Parts: sequence; structure tokens; C-alpha cells
Amino acid sequence: MATAPSRAEIIIGALPFIRDFSGKTVVVKYGGNAMVDRELTTAVIQDLILMRLVGMQPVVVHGGGPQIDQAMKTSGMQPRFAQGLRITDADTMRIVERVLVGEINQEIVAWIQRLGGAAIGLSGKDGGLIQARKAAPVKAPDGQLVDLGLVGDVARVDPRPIRTLQEAGYIPVVAPTAGDETGATYNINADLVAGEVAAALVAEKLVLLTDTDGILDRQGRLLSTLTRQDVERLMADGTINRGMLPKVQACLTALKAGVRKTHIINGTRQHALIEELLTPEGVGTEIVA
Amino acid sequence: MATAPSRAEIIIGALPFIRDFSGKTVVVKYGGNAMVDRELTTAVIQDLILMRLVGMQPVVVHGGGPQIDQAMKTSGMQPRFAQGLRITDADTMRIVERVLVGEINQEIVAWIQRLGGAAIGLSGKDGGLIQARKAAPVKAPDGQLVDLGLVGDVARVDPRPIRTLQEAGYIPVVAPTAGDETGATYNINADLVAGEVAAALVAEKLVLLTDTDGILDRQGRLLSTLTRQDVERLMADGTINRGMLPKVQACLTALKAGVRKTHIINGTRQHALIEELLTPEGVGTEIVA
Amino acid sequence: MATAPSRAEIIIGALPFIRDFSGKTVVVKYGGNAMVDRELTTAVIQDLILMRLVGMQPVVVHGGGPQIDQAMKTSGMQPRFAQGLRITDADTMRIVERVLVGEINQEIVAWIQRLGGAAIGLSGKDGGLIQARKAAPVKAPDGQLVDLGLVGDVARVDPRPIRTLQEAGYIPVVAPTAGDETGATYNINADLVAGEVAAALVAEKLVLLTDTDGILDRQGRLLSTLTRQDVERLMADGTINRGMLPKVQACLTALKAGVRKTHIINGTRQHALIEELLTPEGVGTEIVA
Amino acid sequence: MATAPSRAEIIIGALPFIRDFSGKTVVVKYGGNAMVDRELTTAVIQDLILMRLVGMQPVVVHGGGPQIDQAMKTSGMQPRFAQGLRITDADTMRIVERVLVGEINQEIVAWIQRLGGAAIGLSGKDGGLIQARKAAPVKAPDGQLVDLGLVGDVARVDPRPIRTLQEAGYIPVVAPTAGDETGATYNINADLVAGEVAAALVAEKLVLLTDTDGILDRQGRLLSTLTRQDVERLMADGTINRGMLPKVQACLTALKAGVRKTHIINGTRQHALIEELLTPEGVGTEIVA
Amino acid sequence: MATAPSRAEIIIGALPFIRDFSGKTVVVKYGGNAMVDRELTTAVIQDLILMRLVGMQPVVVHGGGPQIDQAMKTSGMQPRFAQGLRITDADTMRIVERVLVGEINQEIVAWIQRLGGAAIGLSGKDGGLIQARKAAPVKAPDGQLVDLGLVGDVARVDPRPIRTLQEAGYIPVVAPTAGDETGATYNINADLVAGEVAAALVAEKLVLLTDTDGILDRQGRLLSTLTRQDVERLMADGTINRGMLPKVQACLTALKAGVRKTHIINGTRQHALIEELLTPEGVGTEIVA
Amino acid sequence: MATAPSRAEIIIGALPFIRDFSGKTVVVKYGGNAMVDRELTTAVIQDLILMRLVGMQPVVVHGGGPQIDQAMKTSGMQPRFAQGLRITDADTMRIVERVLVGEINQEIVAWIQRLGGAAIGLSGKDGGLIQARKAAPVKAPDGQLVDLGLVGDVARVDPRPIRTLQEAGYIPVVAPTAGDETGATYNINADLVAGEVAAALVAEKLVLLTDTDGILDRQGRLLSTLTRQDVERLMADGTINRGMLPKVQACLTALKAGVRKTHIINGTRQHALIEELLTPEGVGTEIVA
Repeated sequence: MATAPSRAEIIIGALPFIRDFSGKTVVVKYGGNAMVDRELTTAVIQDLILMRLVGMQPVVVHGGGPQIDQAMKTSGMQPRFAQGLRITDADTMRIVERVLVGEINQEIVAWIQRLGGAAIGLSGKDGGLIQARKAAPVKAPDGQLVDLGLVGDVARVDPRPIRTLQEAGYIPVVAPTAGDETGATYNINADLVAGEVAAALVAEKLVLLTDTDGILDRQGRLLSTLTRQDVERLMADGTINRGMLPKVQACLTALKAGVRKTHIINGTRQHALIEELLTPEGVGTEIVA
Repeated sequence: MATAPSRAEIIIGALPFIRDFSGKTVVVKYGGNAMVDRELTTAVIQDLILMRLVGMQPVVVHGGGPQIDQAMKTSGMQPRFAQGLRITDADTMRIVERVLVGEINQEIVAWIQRLGGAAIGLSGKDGGLIQARKAAPVKAPDGQLVDLGLVGDVARVDPRPIRTLQEAGYIPVVAPTAGDETGATYNINADLVAGEVAAALVAEKLVLLTDTDGILDRQGRLLSTLTRQDVERLMADGTINRGMLPKVQACLTALKAGVRKTHIINGTRQHALIEELLTPEGVGTEIVA
Repeated sequence: MATAPSRAEIIIGALPFIRDFSGKTVVVKYGGNAMVDRELTTAVIQDLILMRLVGMQPVVVHGGGPQIDQAMKTSGMQPRFAQGLRITDADTMRIVERVLVGEINQEIVAWIQRLGGAAIGLSGKDGGLIQARKAAPVKAPDGQLVDLGLVGDVARVDPRPIRTLQEAGYIPVVAPTAGDETGATYNINADLVAGEVAAALVAEKLVLLTDTDGILDRQGRLLSTLTRQDVERLMADGTINRGMLPKVQACLTALKAGVRKTHIINGTRQHALIEELLTPEGVGTEIVA
Repeated sequence: MATAPSRAEIIIGALPFIRDFSGKTVVVKYGGNAMVDRELTTAVIQDLILMRLVGMQPVVVHGGGPQIDQAMKTSGMQPRFAQGLRITDADTMRIVERVLVGEINQEIVAWIQRLGGAAIGLSGKDGGLIQARKAAPVKAPDGQLVDLGLVGDVARVDPRPIRTLQEAGYIPVVAPTAGDETGATYNINADLVAGEVAAALVAEKLVLLTDTDGILDRQGRLLSTLTRQDVERLMADGTINRGMLPKVQACLTALKAGVRKTHIINGTRQHALIEELLTPEGVGTEIVA
Repeated sequence: MATAPSRAEIIIGALPFIRDFSGKTVVVKYGGNAMVDRELTTAVIQDLILMRLVGMQPVVVHGGGPQIDQAMKTSGMQPRFAQGLRITDADTMRIVERVLVGEINQEIVAWIQRLGGAAIGLSGKDGGLIQARKAAPVKAPDGQLVDLGLVGDVARVDPRPIRTLQEAGYIPVVAPTAGDETGATYNINADLVAGEVAAALVAEKLVLLTDTDGILDRQGRLLSTLTRQDVERLMADGTINRGMLPKVQACLTALKAGVRKTHIINGTRQHALIEELLTPEGVGTEIVA
Repeated sequence: MATAPSRAEIIIGALPFIRDFSGKTVVVKYGGNAMVDRELTTAVIQDLILMRLVGMQPVVVHGGGPQIDQAMKTSGMQPRFAQGLRITDADTMRIVERVLVGEINQEIVAWIQRLGGAAIGLSGKDGGLIQARKAAPVKAPDGQLVDLGLVGDVARVDPRPIRTLQEAGYIPVVAPTAGDETGATYNINADLVAGEVAAALVAEKLVLLTDTDGILDRQGRLLSTLTRQDVERLMADGTINRGMLPKVQACLTALKAGVRKTHIINGTRQHALIEELLTPEGVGTEIVA
């Protein structure tokens, strides 16, 4: 049992970490599955507020897969995927934007406000934060190219809307939708958005909260630290695959732009963010330059 | 035909108005019906960008009735109204928030960006802009009180999120949804939100864009200038009624807080905003203290 | 006849120009002949005030030939010219400085103030704005060199006095007189001063208001756009000559320093400045890099 | 003979005065007669520059009677006076403005610049510094009221143009001409302008440089310190009269507005300003509240 | 044993306290006896650095009784006391100032710097922080008044030196010596200095670190919360006495000036400061308004 | 005898010097022997306050040899020297730090405050101003290397603590003690500290106040201006030796870093600082690049 004196000792143990991160931007990808559990979400929100209070500059990027599926089902629509990516026609895109920007983003913002923080939501459209472009078609198992419709890539990030909110004391909460110059709206993978935003802000850290413990080797053992070379090898030999691919891609994008460290950690573990950032126990997988 | 010299003369004619409004905040309610016509919307967006460029500080508040009805229909839901107010259960509220915040707000923001302006969307939840409270039940024609569900009133406005965006050069675009301290989300009449926001900012002007020419007398003639006393008399005798009621209420709220002038004008007329603000021709109905 | 809606449309037509010039410095040479007509002067002053209100930074440089001639006549002195340049002895210089700084400059300043703007007059001596040096003698038709006396060139411009006034919200109004390090005072051609001031401020535009429509070809047709090469050719072949020479020289000086565009337009046309700056109709001759 | 050590001691003796005046505004009236002697003027200019360097904020107001008389004579005009005040018709006013603003003001400005200071000239018209109104007629010895024409009083002072120049590091040099709302230009007594400017700036001191030693009693002895009551008594009994009247009036105006001390000192004595401000030897007459 | 997850939970438990103290000044009296143990001092220094990092503004006031006694002994001098207060002649005062300012203050400053913080030492003389006055004589047990010599009270605190250091990011470390206007130097009780400094800064908290657990009742039980009334009663009945008197006096001074809470806690307990400030476990005695 | 007019003339004679030094940092080494005479010290303090008032930024570095000797004697310790440098064991160092930081520094600070200036004392430990390292052993006449103990050199200067105080209007007063990364405290020659501080601040001037007239040639005549080459030659041939060596070394260090001029002057001459800085009479020896 943690007695009172050891409480203070544990808090004082956070001192070197708080010092190192003071004033630094940390981009946190906080995803769809991790948001389902109410208690866990409360813990993540508390972590974000504490990060801000001890001098860090957290930026949240969120996804929303399960909620989009649910909304489509309610509207009688059938989600379709190609290589794990959502095929997004205009009707689907309308649902995606409504759910991401008009529901999940608002929920996170309101939660932060309710627990005593201050947050403002942004989509890629707000202030021209993200300029999108249509993603390339993907190759189906049968070798055919599948057009994903309104699935986009990040063409350009304008960091000013986020800087404006940070300087005014708000935690920016970013939904992964954006427009292009023709006025079309795109759905972009939230991991990739987090990587590009971290890159544009030259953040200190990118932390991707997932529902697994990190990157595992073929024997299922956690790999705690990987270099970019390691990652490229593991992608080539298929150890890293499927849903882990955009996460790893986000980390590489961020590292190339000068972000110091990137992490893939288990967001279903209570206060995993604080554990990673403010305690000597590293958790999950760290990918470094 | 307007020849070149008279162009310059007309522009120079805007000089006294530009001078008077320099640095002043003008809250513009821009509504659901007015947004249906693409050309008209383009004209309104241009007006907002010009307002900003000549030194005014426009703040947009938008509604979205028709689009909400359409979205509910698509989801197989049946809109219900009591005394012209939408009865809003939890499922309806989810649709309302998704459409207002995740669709209409984003559309206005993206349009402003595309025409060369800079805008960021806010709901009442963002940065704690609006604190809502449940609205009182309304009396049905049969005398019974009808609970409107998640229809809210404005309990409090925190002007800081809007000020932050204004100072950074963004036009704030506000969706009329907000939370209360229990975490519930409310739909608030956009006219009322515009009035309360204008009051909290002590705006120079509140301009409500509608689809009629202004307040008409019983003979259908436009009333161009009304005092608060006039308005109260016209409400009492039923000349002002139905959908015009929240508009007039918004004007009175704003005037009480020190807003100088309020206007109800026909937003279906091209560049009616510029006409009202920068030309000697007043349009619509002006309600003054 | 311009009906109300088209007023708004014409104003909105100024949008792209206002956007492009926002925050930019525009140096306007406003001359002696153009100042004789009271109505015209009122129009020019309104143009300057509007420019400031819509976000431009106008700087006025003025001449005063006719008024100087008049003042000399009153004092019983005889103006003398060589190659169109005023031969300026000490007595003449005293009259020149009194009229330019103590009469014309004050008249423009007072006019701007009276129409609701804010202006402060400067000579080249104020705050060391302009350091002069004696101009070289000119060659008379008989081949003899004529010493022009106290006619000067611009040796150096210190932009700080103008920046100080601009930042405090005043329109700077510059009289073309300046001293050298010996304490002598010089009369400098106002067109040249305008060109040098535009160059030192790296202005966006230099606009010279004259009493002709611009540069004409040998057939008397207006040349609307010229490059520096065109201009040098036209000077060489004598198409550009006499009073147009210092104007063209001013444009070249400004262009060399990085000023984007220079214009020679007819200031006797009402609101020609606004026409040039804020309407699609270009007027006069534009000389570009 | 002042040996080297005593030099340092004398300089250190200025310490308490420099400390007391640090950051304080001192308005100096520097007049027409005092400007005739070149060596004396150099000394006054040095004094002003030193005042600025040791942290004071000098503001110069100048007159120009002798130079105006001279200019009128050159133009074949005959100065006319009533009760010592110049009767100013439109032609005279034109000469007055030209000479004050276009000659004397420029001369002082250029002199300060040449000796290493920084100065910008202002008239009452510049930036709306002084709003004038027509002065009341004066009673001639024969009891008739004489209309002085364009002789004005100070209706209002806007201190912002002076503050702008002070903050940017320039010594403001003020010519005593100003306009009214009709566009008329007035000649105002420079002593009165100095008093009103000192009042509007709530200066620390007003120092009027004259060509006498100060206020003398009927036996011709210098009165070194007077209160407002003393002054009113001496005006009533005629001891203070003629040209000393506007000086004393200026002092009273300044004192009423909160200026701490006012001085009438002999500007024909070398470095009298420094002697008064930075040495223990007071000179001339001091009028205090 | 505290496992990894509970570390994060304990850190997150500090969230509400960090939020409440963000930007607030906390004055910490850190005394002579508490400084003897090296490990304890390290812990206190870490606490101060963490306080600063999480957004608080700590100000340290230190004493130095044991070190002064030691230094006097080394110099062959005999400490003398009256009513627990050091009788301070000129020779003693020289030792006191040397040890407090030239040894203990420097030691604390260097320690903070070495552990990664930033600190600058101040005495009451630096920047005129504290103006002292001679303390009144004390009554000896035999009823005679004993002059304490150079023992002083705080006459006035100028908070600017502390504010200057705080704004530049330094932790101010204050030694309790000060001068009066005659140039005499006084030794002031460090508890009293802490109370006066907290009062002048209108600090959020005053925390006095002692070597006992707080204020005990007559049965030796800790009194955890006392009001000013309680304290006055306990002083009157002698429960609070001797060395606890100046501590309690310091708390009352601070509370009267608007300091929110004051604490007397046991500085010999590791990280007692963090325990008091950032954990739910209050320690020691809290005296509130 | 200096009559009143010549007082003003002498003050005005300081004008060019005040102008040249405005805003510039001047480091003044003010030493132990020079501090013994009360009247002299008052004069030096006045000089420093005047320097600040006329716009210079003085920084004081002080020594304290005689006072340290006296304190050691009082404590029954015997000063030991090797090659003129104090052999400093731990007990000696404790005395040195107490006397320099806790007595002399405080005395200078209090004196400046009492005469109306504002000063804050710093040691090399405060804010990490100076990082020390152990000095190399010196060679005794018998050829043996003598370890000087806790005598240090300047390893690094962090100018921020001084800049912080200067910007807030305080004169920084620096004691020549500093720590290294192990926590050891060192005594550093004050001349060397002055040179290094002047170098780190890229001061305009370094002025070393000594008790001789400057550097003398072998015939005992004052050398008024020396270049670095001259100095190196005079060091090589032994003309410059003993206590003058660290002074000359300090000048060379400062000059190498870009300090414009360095001076060794006689601080026992009243107001020698003002004489050097603000009068045409140079005093002492000037060493220039």
C-alpha cells in the first residue's frame, strides 16, 4: 500500500520528466476503440489536463471507426473496406464528417472542459489546418486497383490554428477530416494525421494510444525500443502489418520531421500516458530516429 | 450601367460606414433557409470576408433547420414540433449536433477559407463558449405544458474563445449547440444564441439574415425602424409572432446588453449585408434602444 | 443608374484589391496643378482616407510649382528655369521652403484632418528623413553647363520618421525639401522624392498623380503597361521627355528597390486613386519591373 | 579656472536634478528674438539635446515675431498691432504660417538634427494637435474694440501627436499656428501655446526663454519666486504688463493644469536652460502654485 | 510496494492541487535546524524545483541560528539571548550578516542551481527589498527591559526585487537581514520576514518548515486546523509559546494581508512540502483566516 | 573659481560623452583598498548612480582583500600567499565567501540604495552567473609548483542574471566567488572576473579602479594609451608585473571579446569615473584593441 510519504516521493520522482517536457508539444492519438470505456476515457482526459498543467502542450488527434460503423448501421448503410481502409462514397463521407466532427470531437472537448481543462475542437478544415488530397487506389488481393473514394492523404499542414489555441491556453482536439481546393471533403486515417501534425509542429513526442501493448515480434513478445531501420526491416518481413502499418508510418513521418521520440502504447491501461511521460517505467514500443 | 468613374464614387461612398465600424464586432445570424442557394451563400461569404478586410470583426452564428429535417428523414426519424420549437429527444439531439457541428458549421468554415478568408468553427462546447440550461416547457394550444426535451436556453457566454480567434485573425463561426454541467447536450435556437453572443461581446451590431424583408405591419408594409417599446407593443398585439419572435427576442437581449443597433434583413437578397453595412440604403427592419 | 443592389456588388468587387493591399504601403505623389481644384482635392483626400481605413498605408509626397511661382511673383521675384528645372538661389529657396512646408503641406494635412483622417506633415529635414546633396549642373541648349543653385538630389532616406507616424495611425505628408550636412537647404523634384521614399520603404506601389492620362506614344495613344526596358527605349527615342522624365525616373528608382508596381495616372479625374487601386479598371500607365 | 577634478564635481552636482527630472516632460518656449544670435541658438539646441540624453522629455514651442516682420517688409506689407498684438488679415496670416512653419520651425529642427539630436516639427494642424478659435477683440486706448482678424486662442490640445514623437525618440518642435473647424488658420501667441501644451501634457516644468532676466519689481529688481497670488496682485497693480502678460498667463494656465513649476528666464544667457535645470543656481523668475 | 500503475495514479492525484496553485506564490520559510541534514536539504530543494516546474512561484526565506552560533564560537564570541531572541551587538551583527548572506543563502542558491533549478539570493538590502527598524526592547523575567541591539522589525517590504526575479524564472532566496535609513544593519527573525514577505506579495500560501509536527495542544496532540481566533486564544493561555510565537505571528501577519492559508509543518519529514501541497494528506497545522 | 555660467558649460561639455555611452554597458571593477575611505566610496557610488541616470548601464565587480585579511586575523587565521595569490583552504574560503558576499557586496548595495540608486548583489553562484574551475598551480621562486587550493578561474559566464537586473533598473553588484559542478566554492581574482563579465556582456568599456595612476613606464611616467601589442611587450620585459598583471589580463580578455576600450585608473581620485567617462580629460591608462 502506498503510504503518504511515498506518495510525495513518487510525485517528486516525476521531477526530471516534467523538467524535460516543459513547454514541449506532445501529440496524442486517442482512438475510437479506446473511447468506448467511460472510466478509461476519464483517465485519459485527466492525463491530458495534467500534462497541460505541468507545462506540456498536448494536442489530441482522434479517430472514430466504431462510432462511424454504428452511425452507418443506424442509417441503414453498409460499411465497405478494401485492405482495411474504408471505401468512402459521398453518403458515407457525410456520415463520417458528422460523426467525427459533430460527435466524437465534441465529446472529447466537452469532457476536458467538464474535468476542469480548456479545449477547442478543430477539423482539418478549420483555419485551413489540413489541406487534403485524394489517396491513391489500393491493390486488392485479386490484383485489381480499388478506388477508395473520399479517402485522403495529408497534402499540407498549417500549424497556425493549433498555435493560436495553444497560446491562448486551450488544448487543441483535432478530427481527421479535411478539404481540398475543389471543395471535396476527405476522411484521413487518424494515425497519419497525428504523424503529420506532430511533424508540422516539430513536436517533442508523438504518442499513439492503441488497444495492444505495442509492436510484438513473431513470438508475441513486446519490442520496447526500435530504430527507423528496425521498423523498416519489420515492415519488409511482415512482422508489422495491417492496422499497425499506419501507426508505424505516422511515427516515421514524425521522426523524419525532427520529432524526438514516438510511442505506440496501450491506451486501455489506466493512465498509460502519465506512466509513459512522467514515470521511469516506459511502456509499449518506442520508435526513435 | 455603372461606368468606371461611378464605381470609384460608390466605393468612396462606403467611407463613412467603414470608418464607423472599424474594429467593431458585428454578429451575423445566417440561417438554414438562406444557405440552400449556392450563389447566395457565396455572396454572404464574400460579404463576411470584406467586412473583416475593411476592419470589422464579423462573428457568424448559424442555424440549420432544413438540413436537420433532411437528416432525420434519411435516418427514418419524424421531426416533431410544439409551438414551432423542435421536440428534441436524445436520438434527435445526436442528429442535430452532428448536422450543425459536423456538417453546416464545417461547410461555412470551408467556404470562407476557399474564398480567401480565414475561419474556425466553434460550438457552444468549445472552450466553454456557451453554458446551456434546459428550456422551460411550452404551453400547447390545448393548454398542456409540453416538455421540449433537449432544447436549451443560454445560461452563460464566455467570450474568450471568440476573442482568441478574432485576435488571431480568424472569423469565428458558431453552431448553436451547448452542454450543461451534467454533460447533457442541448439544441438552442440560433437567433437566441446570436443575441446572447452579441450581448456578451457587447457587439456594435447584430444582423439577423432571414428570408423575409423584415418586420411587417398588419398591412404587410415593412417597418424600417422600431424602438424596444414599439417591439414590445407589436409582440403584445400579435403583429410580431411565430418565427419572428425569437429574432425579436435576440434583438432585445442584445440591446439590453449595450449593443448599439440590431437588424432583421432579407438574406435572400444578394449582398444584403454589405448593402446594410456599407451603403446609405438601409434595408430591412432596424430595432434600436 | 446604379441601383442599390449594384452598389453592394460594386463594393464587393473591391474585395480582391483590398485583400491584396492590406497592410501595404502605397506612396502617392500629389502635385501642384492637381491641387488647384477644390472639388478634386476633396476627392483625393477622401481616397487617401479610404485607403487607410481599408488597411493600406498611404504616404503622400507633394509638389507645389504653381504656388511657388505665385509666391515669387507676389514678392516681386522672377522664376528662372533651365531645362525645365527651377534655378534656385538663396532667396528663391527661402520662398520655396516657406510655400512647400509652411503652406501646401499644412493645407493637405489640415484637409485630411477635417475630413476625418489623421495626418502629420514632414519635410526632408524632419527627423532626418531625407539627406540631400547638390544636383549636378544641367546642360543648356547652347551646350553650357548651368548651375541650378539649391536644387538637390536625394542622397539618403531614413524611413523611421515615416514608420513612426504610420504605426501611430497618421498619414505622413512629405514636402520635397531637405538639408545637407553643411546646413544648406535644397529644393528637390517631388517626383524624385516620391520615387526615393517608395524605394526606401520598399512600398507596394508608387502612384504619381499628374494632369495627363499617362505616357502616350507618338500618335498620342495611351500606353497602359510598360516594362523597364520599354521605358528606357522610349526615353532614348525621345517619346518620353520633359516633365515626364522625372516621373519615369522615379518609377525606375522605385522598381529597382523592389517596389512591385508604379503608376502614372490622371489626378484630374475624380477618385482616380480608388479607381486604380480598388476597381478592375486600370487607368493611366503602369510601369513594372 | 575650472580644473579637471572640479569638472567632474560640477557634473556630479547635476545628479539630484537629473534624478528628479528623469522621464519628465519640460516644455520650453524659445522665442524669436532669442533666435537671432547664432551662438546662442547653438547653446540652446545643445541644452535641449542634453536634456533628452539625461532622460528628460523636452518639447519646444517657438515664436517668430522679428522674422515675420522681416518677411512682411520684403513682401511690401506693413505690420499693424493693437495692444501689442499683431492684427492679422488673410495675407498676413499666409506670411505668418509660411515663416513660422516653413522657415523657423524647419530651422530649429534642422539645427537639432545637425548637432546630433532627433527632432520633428509640428504645427497645431499636424495630427490635430491644436484646435484654435478666434480670439476676442481687444480694447484700443481710445476705448474702441479692435478685431484682430486671424489671431486665435487655443480651444483644445490633443497630446497624442507629441506623445507619438516623444515615444519614438524625437524632440517635438511646435509652431504656434492652428486651424479651426471651418478651415481657417490662426496665429496664436507662442507663450500661450506653450502654456496650453504644458497643461495638456501635464508637464513637470514650463520654461519661457525671454530676453530679460525675469519679472522685475518697480525698482527693477528681479523677483525670483512668485506664487499665483503674487502674480495676480502684480498684474492688478500693473507691475506685470505688456509683453510679460502672455508669459505670465501661460504660467498660470500650466500651473492650474497641474504643472509643477514654471519659469521665466533670460534666454540670452548662454546655457541658461541647463543652468536652471541642472545646477543649484536658479535663474530668472519662478512662478509656482 | 507501489507498482507502476499506482505511480501514475498517485501522480494524477496531484492534478487538482497543481491546478489550484498554478501561477500562485508560495512563501516557504526554511530554517536553520532543517538545513543540517544533507539528505533532507536535497529533498527540500527538489520540492522547490518541482513547485516551480508545475507552475507555482516559490519564494524561500531562510534563517540560520545554528550556523551563526557555530561561527561566533569559532570567532571566540559568546551568543547571548533574552527571551529567546539573540542580543545583537555590532560584532555579532557582522557575523550574522556574513553567515546568513555570505554562507547559508549562497548554499541554498547553489544547491538549487546544481539540482537543475535557477535561483538568485537576496537580502533585505538588495533592491531595497526590506526596510528595517529597531525592535522594541524585551522584558526580562526580572521585569527589566533588555535592549536587543541590532535586532530589527520589518518596517516596509518592496516586492519589486522578488517580482523581477520571479518573472525572469529565478526562485528568490531571501536572507533575513536588512538596513534602515541610517545605514545600520539589522538581524530580523526569519519567520517574521517570511510572514511580511508573504503579506507584501499577497501570496497564496505561507509554509513554515520547522522541526516539530506543528502546534500541539496541552496534551501534546497535533492541532491540524486553527482559525485566527483559536490562535489568539492559545497564545493568551500560553499553549502557544516560545519559538512557536514568531511562527504564529508570521501566519497572522500574512493572513491579515490576504494570504489564503498558512501552514506550520515538520520540515524534517522527507518531501513534507510536496506532501502538504500536492497530496490529499494535509500535514502539520494549518492556520486560516 | 567656477562661476555659475561655467557650471552649465561644464555640464554641457559632457554632452558628446553621454551621447556616445547611452544604453551601453560599462563594467567597473571597484576594489578593496579603494573602499576604505568613506568619502571616496561615496564619490564612487554617486558616479555609478549618475552613470545609470544619464543612460549608461554600469555593472560593478568588487574585490575585498584587506577586509578578508582583517576577518582572518579576527578569527586567528594567518593569510598565506604564493606569487601574490592567496592560498585558499576550505576554512579560508568560508571566510572569503562570507566577507565578499555577506559584507562587502551588501555594503556597496546598501550604499547605492541609500544614495538614491537601485542595486542588487550577485555572486557567481546566483543564477549560475559564473561557473568556476580550479586554477592551475603557480610556480614558486624555488621552482616548485604551489597548489593554491580553492582559487578558481572563470570557466563560463551566463549573462542572463545581469541582464535581468539591468532591464529591471537595478545596478548589478558582483562578488568574485563562484562554484563548480562538484559543489566546491572558489575565490577568483576580481580583476579577472571583471574582464570576463565585460567580455560576456560585450560591454562598451571596462574600467578598473586601482590605487595607482595607471601603468607606468620604467621611469615612473604614466603611459596613457597602450595597444594590445604594447601591453604584451611590457609584460614580456617585466615593466608590467605583480598586481598589475591580472588587471592587464582582464583588459586583454575583454578586448578580445569585442569590448571597445579598457581603462586602468586611479580610484583614489574623487569622481575619477566621471572624469574618465564624461569629461575630455582622460585619466589613467587606456588599453585599446
